[in-house]
Amino acid sequence: MHWENILATRASRLKASEIRELLKLIGQPGVISFAGGIPDDALFPVTEFQQAFAALCEGENASAALQYATSEGHLPLRQWIVGEMAKLGIPCDSGNIIITSGSQQALDYLGKLLLSPGDTALVQWPTYLGALSAFNAYEPVYDRLETGALRPAESYRQAASGGRVKFAYLSSEFCNPTGESIDSKERVRLLNLARDLDIAIIEDAAYQSLRYDGEVIPPILALDIEREGSIEATRTLYCGSFSKTLSPGLRVGWVCGAKSVISRLVLMKQASDLHSGVVNQMAVADVATRAFDKQIEKIRPVYRQRRDSMLQALSREMPAGINWTRPEGGMFIWLTLPDFMDSVGLLADSLKSEKVAFIPGSAFFADRSGANSLRLSFSNSSEENIEQGIARLGRVIRQALAS
Amino acid sequence: MHWENILATRASRLKASEIRELLKLIGQPGVISFAGGIPDDALFPVTEFQQAFAALCEGENASAALQYATSEGHLPLRQWIVGEMAKLGIPCDSGNIIITSGSQQALDYLGKLLLSPGDTALVQWPTYLGALSAFNAYEPVYDRLETGALRPAESYRQAASGGRVKFAYLSSEFCNPTGESIDSKERVRLLNLARDLDIAIIEDAAYQSLRYDGEVIPPILALDIEREGSIEATRTLYCGSFSKTLSPGLRVGWVCGAKSVISRLVLMKQASDLHSGVVNQMAVADVATRAFDKQIEKIRPVYRQRRDSMLQALSREMPAGINWTRPEGGMFIWLTLPDFMDSVGLLADSLKSEKVAFIPGSAFFADRSGANSLRLSFSNSSEENIEQGIARLGRVIRQALAS
Repeated sequence: MHWENILATRASRLKASEIRELLKLIGQPGVISFAGGIPDDALFPVTEFQQAFAALCEGENASAALQYATSEGHLPLRQWIVGEMAKLGIPCDSGNIIITSGSQQALDYLGKLLLSPGDTALVQWPTYLGALSAFNAYEPVYDRLETGALRPAESYRQAASGGRVKFAYLSSEFCNPTGESIDSKERVRLLNLARDLDIAIIEDAAYQSLRYDGEVIPPILALDIEREGSIEATRTLYCGSFSKTLSPGLRVGWVCGAKSVISRLVLMKQASDLHSGVVNQMAVADVATRAFDKQIEKIRPVYRQRRDSMLQALSREMPAGINWTRPEGGMFIWLTLPDFMDSVGLLADSLKSEKVAFIPGSAFFADRSGANSLRLSFSNSSEENIEQGIARLGRVIRQALAS
Repeated sequence: MHWENILATRASRLKASEIRELLKLIGQPGVISFAGGIPDDALFPVTEFQQAFAALCEGENASAALQYATSEGHLPLRQWIVGEMAKLGIPCDSGNIIITSGSQQALDYLGKLLLSPGDTALVQWPTYLGALSAFNAYEPVYDRLETGALRPAESYRQAASGGRVKFAYLSSEFCNPTGESIDSKERVRLLNLARDLDIAIIEDAAYQSLRYDGEVIPPILALDIEREGSIEATRTLYCGSFSKTLSPGLRVGWVCGAKSVISRLVLMKQASDLHSGVVNQMAVADVATRAFDKQIEKIRPVYRQRRDSMLQALSREMPAGINWTRPEGGMFIWLTLPDFMDSVGLLADSLKSEKVAFIPGSAFFADRSGANSLRLSFSNSSEENIEQGIARLGRVIRQALAS
């Protein structure tokens, strides 16, 4: 059987993600890993989920939890999300929400809905690796979204020679991989650009609840509603997730946006996996309703302290010429090495000589540039490991600089 | 915002499924529905799932259940499936299995892996509506797969002018919607055709465990292995599901096939939703290990009795000129009306005058033909409702014939 003869053209863009492959490598004893951007499972609200699973098995809940359900998602969960969106300045109703299997599926669906081969997706340089993987299946071209000094709309339009610019994707807060946010002015400029190009904005808000300091900035969708008067007239699709707050293993996220888009996503979900697991949605609805705020209060100070420890350790351990971001939230710090250094080679050395892991920066660039950068995650390491690990990394970098 | 301007070309093929829309309609009091092909939730192994969910919350299970996991799927579940596949004459190991979110997602992924726009998918006339919905996203052309008197390979090749024939999709046993199976000879002929065309076979085995009588026939994948000597040399991708046996709401299915395909599906899953819910997979692994055979022993006689009741009621209530299938398993009976009749109109009458529901046959034809056919599901109705409902349907049909 010659599979190569019958694969779709998109299959050539299926590649093993460096994150996932690394996650297998770093299981060796003694490795301190800042690689995976995962929550600390010691912080999961286990008792609340135990109660939720127990309740699911009682009476009529059991039948509902085990039976087929609607593609839109579990109504009480969508209603809870509506309440949270309102707190963020996003008035909407449950018809503006679809539940997805994590926000990763939201990115897959939005790529599927909007991209034909050769169309252009605007993404930041660097951007979330998983967004590139999801969009790749729909064979787009990538162009560099510049949120600071904005390029004129016309230059994006001209660059999209093979198709049409379809959307700008970004994580507006504590973004994966840099940890940086864009401010209100940049958000407004981005909305202007999107209006000029008549494209959508995909706002990845996976880290929304993980702000450790600084002032809350309204989501792009909130600014879009303010400008257009109603969510139905907006172009922003907000992707939320419970993976960084309650549990990633349950795979529950959502999209909030205009009903004309949500209704199409519902049809897409029906065709692609019918609906997200009912147990997962019921358990998340139950735990979110009873304990979401409490859970955020619990995890924020822990992650804040880890961020602070890592920033302090970097100040202490890094030689001159190394720069890094100082994020106000999220899970990541982005390190920039001198131009001539290559973080892929550094990782190999690093794992061998000092047993410390990170993700090479080039993984996050659509054009595979950024060889002199790397991503550190502080969310899943103890302060002791952060101090030790950054000291190790400092030694590896100093050694590389010296050689 | 003009969404029409930025939708992918595939979006024009997103259509509301008649099944799903109907499922909303038939909630009216007094309606007897043979429409949805869903298991009876009174038969779910609720106690076993309660035990499974309780166990999931203990000790280290909780952290694993709530944390990110590998895209391949939960290893103990894949190992259990390996054992079941061996019983079907399919020797393989866990590397030949990927867990999907129901077999619906398996169909979506296989369409995504194999179809570029304009390629040809061979499907039966009629076929599973959900397969057409899943494949539609990848913009194929459909050609009619004839499993009885096979068309020569060349005629399929010539018809696929806009692309290449990529696969033949079928449910070899108790298929949705007709309830019919193809026998060993037809399976071998199909393998010959697939070899001639150098295409894949997608074997949808969602109803595999629901045989009520007749002899077990080896799956197409088993015959393919027998012929090729090893699963790695086969062209058949077997899609299994727990939805008809343990629970559809948990969304757990799998694909079994050559590792060169499974490894690509793993990358696809990683990019599209990272992994299926861990709780779902752990719970299914636990219940399957402890109680799968017992569950099958419990549900088979119930569904067999319902099939028998429906067949008897049809014999009693249907006027001359109406034909139907006599399936050896599954959940469906397929009714063929005289050529001049239209089952969509019949459904409207039927819901109004007699409050009985079914799915019009044309929903299952890639070319929307088959207006004079309809699908009845017996799985989720009591014997009393089956007798009453078929009597009502008999009256509606007799009335239509008389007018």
